[in-house]
Amino acid sequence: MAGREIGRTAIAPEWIDYNGHLRDAYYAVILSDVTDSFMDQIGLDSAYREKTHCTLYTLEMHLHYLLEVKQSDEVSVQLRLIAHDKKRIHASFEMYVPRHTSPVCTAEAMLLHVHQGETVGSAPFPSEVMQVLANWQEESDAMAPTEPPSRAMGLKSR
Amino acid sequence: MAGREIGRTAIAPEWIDYNGHLRDAYYAVILSDVTDSFMDQIGLDSAYREKTHCTLYTLEMHLHYLLEVKQSDEVSVQLRLIAHDKKRIHASFEMYVPRHTSPVCTAEAMLLHVHQGETVGSAPFPSEVMQVLANWQEESDAMAPTEPPSRAMGLKSR
Repeated sequence: MAGREIGRTAIAPEWIDYNGHLRDAYYAVILSDVTDSFMDQIGLDSAYREKTHCTLYTLEMHLHYLLEVKQSDEVSVQLRLIAHDKKRIHASFEMYVPRHTSPVCTAEAMLLHVHQGETVGSAPFPSEVMQVLANWQEESDAMAPTEPPSRAMGLKSR
Repeated sequence: MAGREIGRTAIAPEWIDYNGHLRDAYYAVILSDVTDSFMDQIGLDSAYREKTHCTLYTLEMHLHYLLEVKQSDEVSVQLRLIAHDKKRIHASFEMYVPRHTSPVCTAEAMLLHVHQGETVGSAPFPSEVMQVLANWQEESDAMAPTEPPSRAMGLKSR
């Protein structure tokens, strides 16, 4: 357990590839979908987006593929806040299936709060969102960090 | 230009999210699809996979989101080999659209050659694949590296 559960997803048959398991990219699709649930939970829901023209953009995402996921699996995703500031959220994700105790995938994402107008620019979170993030951060800081952490990739490091 | 073009992809309407641009996860779907083309080009095609029960698994993937992609864009993907050994490929990707000169996304992936049997285990590439990889590596080494390189993520590093 390394975070709050933010969503659960069944595996669509078309997400399974010729290797007989969940295609790598659909782990990212699952994370993206549950990130919408996370946005709802911190007050950046569709009503907020419509009213303010503000939303989250993903700047960077790292995925670590640890175990295969099969069509019959139901995936649950936990999110921990590694850090946040006035306009960015650095989140880590752990993806679980019931038949394994260790995560099938871990990931990190850097998310930026932006205002979409004629141009797109970064924008500070409203104070009520900052308060929700502060609570989530405090809870996250008490949890074990997700392993492996994000890192430079290289043949020698393995 | 930082690699050989390995594929071109049109943007499916269902890949566009409520922010009006290509949803983050579908950059990964595009990369995954063109990685199949790359496998065809180095001799790890479906005939090879059927005959040998060997394939590539993705161990890790990093994506850097640099520019928005719209429904009307056609994306081309270039692949450069950063390094490879007897059973692993460390590849970098650059994704381009015609209306921008700089890439819309860069990425890195670590791919492992495995044999799928009762258990899954890493397996060395056949010599003819090693030869193709050696040629591609030589060509890649003469090209400018993809920026930014993979890295540990963090608020302070930005």
